[in-house]
Amino acid sequence: MIFAIKIKIEHLGIAVKDLEASKKLFESLLNTSPYKEEHVPTESVSTSFFKMGESKIELLEATDPNSPIAKFIEKKGEGIHHIAYDVADIESEMKRLSNEGFTRLNETPKKGADNKLVCVLHPKTTNGVLIELCQEITA
Amino acid sequence: MIFAIKIKIEHLGIAVKDLEASKKLFESLLNTSPYKEEHVPTESVSTSFFKMGESKIELLEATDPNSPIAKFIEKKGEGIHHIAYDVADIESEMKRLSNEGFTRLNETPKKGADNKLVCVLHPKTTNGVLIELCQEITA
Repeated sequence: MIFAIKIKIEHLGIAVKDLEASKKLFESLLNTSPYKEEHVPTESVSTSFFKMGESKIELLEATDPNSPIAKFIEKKGEGIHHIAYDVADIESEMKRLSNEGFTRLNETPKKGADNKLVCVLHPKTTNGVLIELCQEITA
Repeated sequence: MIFAIKIKIEHLGIAVKDLEASKKLFESLLNTSPYKEEHVPTESVSTSFFKMGESKIELLEATDPNSPIAKFIEKKGEGIHHIAYDVADIESEMKRLSNEGFTRLNETPKKGADNKLVCVLHPKTTNGVLIELCQEITA
């Protein structure tokens, strides 16, 4: 039997070269202002968030030329970087996905932007789509 | 003054090479079954839809080697192809975005999959992100 345990698209991550310029662009495109900015030193990114219904758009600018976002832009150009799903229990979902044959990029949940525990799946096992699982930190 | 007139992320389009294989993969990843399949001859695609909260995941397989999805995969590989936003009034939103300097790929709304009128913005004007506006056909 199959249950739908993913709740929603939590956010879409979009890799950009110049966060200030892209904030203006998305403000104009989405006709709304970003509600939050956050620097995540562990991921070497500066981020800006827009609300879109129950989901968010996260713009990501690299703060280090060796960061994953800088390398993504070098290889593929600016654009959609990842889809993040909201999950109720990240550890059990990580186990389930490992059993299904998906490859995780981190073995244990790590702290991401926006008060989340996250786990990333390797895009080679997910049709080229970088998938991030995230669970709100409630403690 | 800025108003948020976009309602939600209507769907994410993901370009895949083999719809049958990718349906199984996403069934396993999302832990749910697709609820709909649709062939869209005008776009030369076969599609499969999964629900994800208020949004949908649309898998797209090209049915013609010269179709936009086939060309996208040739250039960038499988992966996220577009973000579609739900809009209440597509014609007024198309006008607003033209005035803001965005380039449209179609001058008038066209019929897309899943009973929608759609308009696509050129990714060169939107940070490499292919944006689709869509409005439910109610008539």
